[in-house]
Amino acid sequence: MPANLKPGATIGILGGGQLGRMLALAAARLGLRCHIYSPEKDSCAFEVVKASTCATYDDERALMRFAAAVDVVTYEFENVPAKTAALLSRRKAVLPDPKVLEITQDRLIEKNFIAELGIATAPYAAVHSASQLAAAIETVGLPAVLKTRQFGYDGKGQATIGKASDPAAAWRKLRNVPCILEGFIGFEREVSLVAARGGDGKVECFDVTENEHRDHILKISRVPAKVPAPLAAEAQRTATRIAKAFDYVGVLAVEMFVVKRGRIRTLLVNEIAPRVHNSGHWTIDGATVSQFEQHIRAVAGWPLAKPLRLGRVEMTNLIGPEVNEAAAWLTVPGASLHLYGKGEPRAGRKMGHVTRVWPAR
Amino acid sequence: MPANLKPGATIGILGGGQLGRMLALAAARLGLRCHIYSPEKDSCAFEVVKASTCATYDDERALMRFAAAVDVVTYEFENVPAKTAALLSRRKAVLPDPKVLEITQDRLIEKNFIAELGIATAPYAAVHSASQLAAAIETVGLPAVLKTRQFGYDGKGQATIGKASDPAAAWRKLRNVPCILEGFIGFEREVSLVAARGGDGKVECFDVTENEHRDHILKISRVPAKVPAPLAAEAQRTATRIAKAFDYVGVLAVEMFVVKRGRIRTLLVNEIAPRVHNSGHWTIDGATVSQFEQHIRAVAGWPLAKPLRLGRVEMTNLIGPEVNEAAAWLTVPGASLHLYGKGEPRAGRKMGHVTRVWPAR
Repeated sequence: MPANLKPGATIGILGGGQLGRMLALAAARLGLRCHIYSPEKDSCAFEVVKASTCATYDDERALMRFAAAVDVVTYEFENVPAKTAALLSRRKAVLPDPKVLEITQDRLIEKNFIAELGIATAPYAAVHSASQLAAAIETVGLPAVLKTRQFGYDGKGQATIGKASDPAAAWRKLRNVPCILEGFIGFEREVSLVAARGGDGKVECFDVTENEHRDHILKISRVPAKVPAPLAAEAQRTATRIAKAFDYVGVLAVEMFVVKRGRIRTLLVNEIAPRVHNSGHWTIDGATVSQFEQHIRAVAGWPLAKPLRLGRVEMTNLIGPEVNEAAAWLTVPGASLHLYGKGEPRAGRKMGHVTRVWPAR
Repeated sequence: MPANLKPGATIGILGGGQLGRMLALAAARLGLRCHIYSPEKDSCAFEVVKASTCATYDDERALMRFAAAVDVVTYEFENVPAKTAALLSRRKAVLPDPKVLEITQDRLIEKNFIAELGIATAPYAAVHSASQLAAAIETVGLPAVLKTRQFGYDGKGQATIGKASDPAAAWRKLRNVPCILEGFIGFEREVSLVAARGGDGKVECFDVTENEHRDHILKISRVPAKVPAPLAAEAQRTATRIAKAFDYVGVLAVEMFVVKRGRIRTLLVNEIAPRVHNSGHWTIDGATVSQFEQHIRAVAGWPLAKPLRLGRVEMTNLIGPEVNEAAAWLTVPGASLHLYGKGEPRAGRKMGHVTRVWPAR
């Protein structure tokens, strides 16, 4: 059960990217302070808070000072080192509970966890050696995607194996680290469900979001997603069950495929992100409460809000040099431009986003 | 013409209260930095920025360092000392142009300015001595309100003179400073019009807002206001003319009375606030662009957005100890709670506000 923070209390956030930045901006609206901890000197989240620590995640003295300066700790990314989380946990509540990270930091453990809940995923198999790969292909079929068990995001640490390609090449590309082979899913659409779970166990889901990726990076999110109502309800139930199984406090996102077999549509869970999620950015401008505020409310021990959507919504990521054309969005009716205050617009770097809302009439 | 700031540029803000805080939060979304200048150590706006200066408004060295550290200067309150503004103007653009302050800091000059534009106000007369008061009462009639020409806000520096009361007592209460006597208006409702004017001269108005005061402090704003469409259009034209006459850059608010004489409703301008305004707080949650973002866009030399309203909206101020009951708002559907991070909830102090939106269906 999280502490019931008073206004003026300080939330410590591990990570100084755009998610930490938007969490801090949401906290500020509620009269809560944030203290950002990040190893990178030019972290964009540093700009929107008074208190920050620039130190590595294994700097024990800095971590202890950070723990002493805050009332609760949360994080903006799922690759928080287990040791860092454990160290902080001894001094202050860390939310969501770091035991969630042990599951979601490893694709194999995560998939097993989902499967044990009786929730459908794509077929998968562990691959810990070149020889195990052949057996995995036998189980999963081809085409399939070989993924490193740990530290993958935005398509990094992945290799597709087609019927004509050499599996050994994929294995070498991923440098012989423990992997998981996932059956390639011919999906109709990709959707995600962003949900918040409060310290009191109550869950509030945002509307199912339809996601379009380019080069393995989210490009556009659209709400409402084009899915039938029963499937949308199933997506909410799935996210709620996962959040409950984790005894989760905060916001999480569940990425899913909509698969059509004949006339039947079903959902397969692809991935869980134990944090605020890019596909939930639309909630800042498109709903009466944002995913960032819900997360802050949850870790502060405050009740969640019931989100109401404000119209049809479309969120577009500004990736790399696309940010140089951002000004064109300033005069688009109903568009809200968000720039993260990052430095160089390197290829693939998320520099900002635009949310366009068409208010209902 | 304001500078066309690049993302990452720094806007200097004079004043560290909730208006400066909300301006800084709006700038952060756009990837712009803010540097807050305020004499008060515990300024709530300091909490949401990395760079701040705590110094008095007559500290020339601090002002020069501030000017050197920012790309443009704006302010959150209308009582910026003329000398401070003049000093800063020599180094950096100050927007809106401080010449506006010379007008709006003095009720008499302001009223003359409005009258010269051919815009209706309540009857008024200058009162610079006890003897002038009798003549003023002759002109304006009773009941009337005696107000100090300078430094009045939220009902401070005012004394009502009724038909039975002693005018000399009112004059003594205001301590013999230059005053203005304003005819008491039997209005149907109080409304305000918040408008933004960009560096390119384009004006964008928010919807007319209906305001309810308690103890001379704004308590509730409602949108849409219950005024006929032609009157709403007139309010927008009035604000637009005032903004143009000032060659204004930024957001201003025009407070007006709706007066009903027989079956005819007319508008009388009561006051101009050359800044973002409490009656525009609803735009953060109730429109696709907020007054704070419009102001930041204007002073940054960026184009304004066309505001779309997201539904019916009601904004309630949390004044003084009312903030202690703020948690009750957290679970009201469509309500967004804003707490300003101020210290003691002294009587009459604006501690936060709540915006409730009923999205259109």
